[in-house]
Amino acid sequence: MQKPTIKDIAKVLNISPSTVSRALSGKPGASEELRKKVIDTAQKLGYMKNLSAGTLKNSKSKIIGVIAFDIRNPFFLEFLKGVEDVLFPREYKILLSNVDENVDKEKIYLNWMIGHGVEGILASPVTESTGRSNLRIYQDFFKIGIPIVFYDRMFYNQNQFDHVIVDNQDAIIQALMYLKENGHEKIGIFLSKKGIFTIEERLKGFIKGCKLLNIPVKNEWICEDIYPHEKTIEVLKDLKRKNNLPTAIIATNNNITKYIVYAAKKNNIKIPEELSLVGFDDLPENELIDPPLTTIKQPILEEGKIAATSLLSRIEDRYARPMRVILKGELIKRKSVKNYV
Amino acid sequence: MQKPTIKDIAKVLNISPSTVSRALSGKPGASEELRKKVIDTAQKLGYMKNLSAGTLKNSKSKIIGVIAFDIRNPFFLEFLKGVEDVLFPREYKILLSNVDENVDKEKIYLNWMIGHGVEGILASPVTESTGRSNLRIYQDFFKIGIPIVFYDRMFYNQNQFDHVIVDNQDAIIQALMYLKENGHEKIGIFLSKKGIFTIEERLKGFIKGCKLLNIPVKNEWICEDIYPHEKTIEVLKDLKRKNNLPTAIIATNNNITKYIVYAAKKNNIKIPEELSLVGFDDLPENELIDPPLTTIKQPILEEGKIAATSLLSRIEDRYARPMRVILKGELIKRKSVKNYV
Repeated sequence: MQKPTIKDIAKVLNISPSTVSRALSGKPGASEELRKKVIDTAQKLGYMKNLSAGTLKNSKSKIIGVIAFDIRNPFFLEFLKGVEDVLFPREYKILLSNVDENVDKEKIYLNWMIGHGVEGILASPVTESTGRSNLRIYQDFFKIGIPIVFYDRMFYNQNQFDHVIVDNQDAIIQALMYLKENGHEKIGIFLSKKGIFTIEERLKGFIKGCKLLNIPVKNEWICEDIYPHEKTIEVLKDLKRKNNLPTAIIATNNNITKYIVYAAKKNNIKIPEELSLVGFDDLPENELIDPPLTTIKQPILEEGKIAATSLLSRIEDRYARPMRVILKGELIKRKSVKNYV
Repeated sequence: MQKPTIKDIAKVLNISPSTVSRALSGKPGASEELRKKVIDTAQKLGYMKNLSAGTLKNSKSKIIGVIAFDIRNPFFLEFLKGVEDVLFPREYKILLSNVDENVDKEKIYLNWMIGHGVEGILASPVTESTGRSNLRIYQDFFKIGIPIVFYDRMFYNQNQFDHVIVDNQDAIIQALMYLKENGHEKIGIFLSKKGIFTIEERLKGFIKGCKLLNIPVKNEWICEDIYPHEKTIEVLKDLKRKNNLPTAIIATNNNITKYIVYAAKKNNIKIPEELSLVGFDDLPENELIDPPLTTIKQPILEEGKIAATSLLSRIEDRYARPMRVILKGELIKRKSVKNYV
């Protein structure tokens, strides 16, 4: 039997082959409904099953796309270095995006990447507080055989995808245990944009950890949706003005960490005498900041290497079992936590 | 008259059209000598002149290549954001490289980029201490009409190229003037890898500024070729051991700045009491470091925007006059310089 082609799909649906091709490649010009029909028909006819991995149109581009949630985040210095370390010797290149935590921008970049024939995509997907995301697009890509590896973030209940993430709940619980050991009972958490996978996980870890360790949870110390991150300054100032500071705050990303240190300086809040701080992500300067910061360190370089390696494996074999890697964070103890014991 | 084609060039040189094509696109398989002949013949026949900008093989890729000297340098957080801000609304994408300050790796990426049909290249070229660089390749690219804009670094006496750089000499002289005002006479400079344009310029600025301001220049305080940047730690330790510290050091990039602060802490050298420090590049954390760092700030986001804008203009009109932009750095005064006056 002959392999089914785009023409066969077009015949079944009574549309033109070019429309099929547009729908399959995620380009505009085909309605969402039609797109779904085309993908379902392609699956039914076994169109994709006869393709080896990545042999859509531009098979050997030797380019992989990187969906980066915000290129200004220092996370990407280490992550991209890890990715490039793996890709360079294998002659793969990086098509870089910057989605600024914006679902619509992410969608545009995903379409562009497919249009440019990337062989696979490394993605840290955006989810809005309403739950809106590009999950459907990723699912469609998966169905038609475009290799995808999620890093840093993933979608719940989507076990068909490869992913490399850090155990965010565990990381926060480690921080809580350390604070508890040092006699803290009044603990707050500063969280970035609501909806984002890592941020939701860190919040879950906080609630779970407080329960486990018998630490009272006070809503006014769970500061959510601090985005853009400059908002940190106002939030901290406000707590101080109301004379309602916790004894310790856990930050949930490196920008929030920096802004807490900054706002504390501006508002004459002494760290750690008046306020203890556990930062997130161990940037080289954390040791140099006044005071040197106790921080949750993610193995970011390794995450980049593993994500790139997983994607290359997926490109080689789209039927391999999904690789779901969960890395452990580490608490680096310095001088921003006061000991009350 | 018909436009000359690759076949015409091949006929003149009595070689195959595919060899001509390889030579023109910078791919391996053609000797350097042959490559030169092909490019000269192409120019003589007016081959390139009949091409509008960027219409080599893959004209409308809507991709631009970025040659990044070292992706781990925080410079790129701001720079890439500036570039992407300009490219995104015009539907251009970034093919990212990471050359790790390595001339050979830069060459490989340049060839790859052309192979992928980028419409233009933003490059911060590497020069080794021996003077070895990829200048010849850039010159060839220029001759055959590939749009190139240099950023952060450039080549001397190559005024045909567009570039966007910072006035590095002026930046160092600003720092010297400020140190002089504060009573410093024993001033050192810590320089990154020898040969690199920015580093050589900063050294020139130092020598020139010391002369202008009547500051004695002492060779043992001009610490060159500190690369990899971790070497900073040893260099500082050594000066301390020999009891030969200057009263102030000017760092010439953000990694060296960080390592000086780090090494000073480890070796019990108090900043600024025992040693004053002027850093390079104003990262957000410089204000938070202990002590807050006096730093030379480069307008990096703007540099990214201007470089991308220049490249798009060059893509549209390869005969426009070269744009040579020199931006001014700014000295941000904080608390890492002691006042002896």
